[in-house]
Amino acid sequence: MNFRMIGRIISFILIVEAIFMLPAMLLCAFGGQTFSAVAFLITIGIILAVSCGLWLLSRKAPRGFYSRDGLVCVGLSWITMSLFGALPFAISGEIPSYLDSLFEIASGFSTTGASILNDVEALSKGMLLWRSTSHWLGGMGVLVFLLALVPISGRNDGFTMHLLRAESPGPDVGKLVPRMKQTAIILYGLYILLTVLDFICLIIGKMPVFDAVCIAVGTAGTGGFGVLNTSIGSYSPYIQVVCTVFMFLFGVNFTCYYLLICGKIKNVLKDEELHWYLSIALLSIIAITISVRNVYPTFGESLRHSAFQVGSLLSSTGFSTTDFDLWPAFPKALLFCLMFIGASAGSTGGGFKVGRSILIAKIIRRNVRQVLYPQKVQVVRVNGRVVDETVLSNTNAYLCAYLIIILASFLVVSLDGFSTATNFSAVVSCFNNMGPGLESVGPSLNYSGYGAASKIVLIFDMLAGRLEIFPILVLFSRSAWKRR
Amino acid sequence: MNFRMIGRIISFILIVEAIFMLPAMLLCAFGGQTFSAVAFLITIGIILAVSCGLWLLSRKAPRGFYSRDGLVCVGLSWITMSLFGALPFAISGEIPSYLDSLFEIASGFSTTGASILNDVEALSKGMLLWRSTSHWLGGMGVLVFLLALVPISGRNDGFTMHLLRAESPGPDVGKLVPRMKQTAIILYGLYILLTVLDFICLIIGKMPVFDAVCIAVGTAGTGGFGVLNTSIGSYSPYIQVVCTVFMFLFGVNFTCYYLLICGKIKNVLKDEELHWYLSIALLSIIAITISVRNVYPTFGESLRHSAFQVGSLLSSTGFSTTDFDLWPAFPKALLFCLMFIGASAGSTGGGFKVGRSILIAKIIRRNVRQVLYPQKVQVVRVNGRVVDETVLSNTNAYLCAYLIIILASFLVVSLDGFSTATNFSAVVSCFNNMGPGLESVGPSLNYSGYGAASKIVLIFDMLAGRLEIFPILVLFSRSAWKRR
Repeated sequence: MNFRMIGRIISFILIVEAIFMLPAMLLCAFGGQTFSAVAFLITIGIILAVSCGLWLLSRKAPRGFYSRDGLVCVGLSWITMSLFGALPFAISGEIPSYLDSLFEIASGFSTTGASILNDVEALSKGMLLWRSTSHWLGGMGVLVFLLALVPISGRNDGFTMHLLRAESPGPDVGKLVPRMKQTAIILYGLYILLTVLDFICLIIGKMPVFDAVCIAVGTAGTGGFGVLNTSIGSYSPYIQVVCTVFMFLFGVNFTCYYLLICGKIKNVLKDEELHWYLSIALLSIIAITISVRNVYPTFGESLRHSAFQVGSLLSSTGFSTTDFDLWPAFPKALLFCLMFIGASAGSTGGGFKVGRSILIAKIIRRNVRQVLYPQKVQVVRVNGRVVDETVLSNTNAYLCAYLIIILASFLVVSLDGFSTATNFSAVVSCFNNMGPGLESVGPSLNYSGYGAASKIVLIFDMLAGRLEIFPILVLFSRSAWKRR
Repeated sequence: MNFRMIGRIISFILIVEAIFMLPAMLLCAFGGQTFSAVAFLITIGIILAVSCGLWLLSRKAPRGFYSRDGLVCVGLSWITMSLFGALPFAISGEIPSYLDSLFEIASGFSTTGASILNDVEALSKGMLLWRSTSHWLGGMGVLVFLLALVPISGRNDGFTMHLLRAESPGPDVGKLVPRMKQTAIILYGLYILLTVLDFICLIIGKMPVFDAVCIAVGTAGTGGFGVLNTSIGSYSPYIQVVCTVFMFLFGVNFTCYYLLICGKIKNVLKDEELHWYLSIALLSIIAITISVRNVYPTFGESLRHSAFQVGSLLSSTGFSTTDFDLWPAFPKALLFCLMFIGASAGSTGGGFKVGRSILIAKIIRRNVRQVLYPQKVQVVRVNGRVVDETVLSNTNAYLCAYLIIILASFLVVSLDGFSTATNFSAVVSCFNNMGPGLESVGPSLNYSGYGAASKIVLIFDMLAGRLEIFPILVLFSRSAWKRR
């Protein structure tokens, strides 16, 4: 394992984190919350000191950097980032316990949006901004950001690729352009563009600028932290519709946008994952609108709330405009299934991913056919191309790990004595980076009732879910810690 | 598809079914329930007529019989068997609706033990016996029974193998002895032996003979239909202990017993699946005993109830001695996880199977290693032997189908408006052939509240779960219905 190179990358990442804390610190300072501003200042000081220390320790890093180094680096980076990102909350005392602060910021970076706060509005504006900023950084990935900006290792393209692959969601991360660095730049360019568009649309709807910034970056990262206790519920219908549209947009594979810009509209229209993503969304909205038609006074309102909640859970954002835990059993069950499916691969959304679900369905069909015609070699095709057996095998291993982690976490979390539906939905929601669950962790409630052990497990779930398990899982493998 | 051969096999199976109805009919006749006896008589008449018809239609069957024929044959046999097996309940009017009767007998054959009866004790003894008999037939498999007895296709060993493989549970069904027919005979021999042993132990505990017969065959098939409304709760502690021991015994791979008889004790002691099965059982019993220590007056009682419930759910039997839905969250969550794991491969139990769970865990480890050391070819070993990639691929496809069916069924069942925990546990319980679920389908309640659509879905789940999905799934594949 190339620990020196990993140390060097983490030292860079810490500096990025410190830079992203500056706006929140300034907001505190100018808003008169001096104590909170000082908390940010102290944190930035600590971060810079640690970063310098790491940088000094990791001089003369060897050049060899393999897939395993990429995974370990991503896993360690995200844990480090969360540990330091929690400090402002804890130092300022706005969230008294460090564990709760860690929960909140891990939920932010992993774009989960699950909170332990009973009263979000009591938080200072600077802290609210930092929470939402963490969504934006976590959404597209902080390493992707770093790779787009900094020439850490010169023209070593394999290096960039291993990091990008380890951090980006989806069963098979492709290059948009031959050079990985360019790919990272294009991804962030698109990401910034869409975020700004979202912000402008919100401002047109007369949303306060501060709210618009927080909601726009929270939507972009498919995070889900809001600035009001009612999430998006008390904004105007226009703003709710804007949020719905952008939640769906951020759940689409960014490759589609790149192809659109390049004028390759045909390729976008033929994309199987996009077809499925839109079909699932449309069918769910129709089914839920019909199911909740008696809950709301007008058809329009039922449609708006249905579309919002479907967009929120399919893209794994976790905003809400209504307490869907009060809905009848069927729409609740449907939303629960959407939590599992999640957004598209290569988007900022979480969950198992539509792309993987398609592979799963095709693997079943392949095996049924293999049984019926054992002589024929059966392959799995997506978008007309044969999918590599390694990708299928990894998808399967991913599913296996996914389930085992969900069941194991469910067991630990159950020790706290909440209901079965609460515990199961809490784990599923955190692991798939949604935010709200059912019953005691429903959209109008929060995770503050869980004990320390449960919170640690849920923090693990959020990070493992965002990084798609393996970068976190390899940290538990003894062989990852051997020097080679 | 060799439909003539399939038709011939089904005609045999129907006769086996009719023969197994005779004891129940006689019990009704001698017990004075003439009307119920007549219902059995009519059913047997119908079955014999249909069987003769099928036999006449399927003369001159071609000899070629492939894996796909085996799957289709098993799927169709079990559906046919259930359709006719439901008739006595419906004709006698003891269960007024045919759909409910079908639910009850499909639950019987699939060894689920989920019931729609509010008052089990109101059923006549003959009907109770028929319910329990269906567990025994379904447990080891009616086709295995047929293969052990009847020389349908002379010395065609491939024929026997395809049927045995399609009906027997587990990721990789092995031959005990070189000839498949002998394997079937040995399996049924062991099955009968253990059932008789169970019966004798129950009789020693002064259980009424009728109860002992029903409970013994119900335990043998890991079914779960009892003869009292309290399941096993109102029998003596001795009987509860006997049931616990035998539930665990019937959840063990029968190959272990064969090896024991052959004196190959070393091989049994080294069996990985047995290690895991026993470890999971032991750890669960300890954890649950500690969790429910305050629910019962003495430690002994806590231990007895814990061991019983763990045995019941791990082996997928579904008997109960206490209403575990009233337990705290953690033991309930643990039982819920045991429902998923299920019994050993090659046992009469249901669920995902311990053997498959081991493979799943090893697949994850393999893929983590593959990422860490991409140069090395990584294999999966069980009991020291390399597992074939086809078995791994089938295990993965099985897991995929398993999950999709659970989620899809959950959606349909949710239309009936029960709570999320009720609906989810109902599907998981039926699909894994347990019986009781949580909340409104908990151990002291039943499935009568569900509507027709939900019942049909649950019947599908029970059969698909028992046959491990593929024999039922291929029936939905267009290519299975082509003549070749």
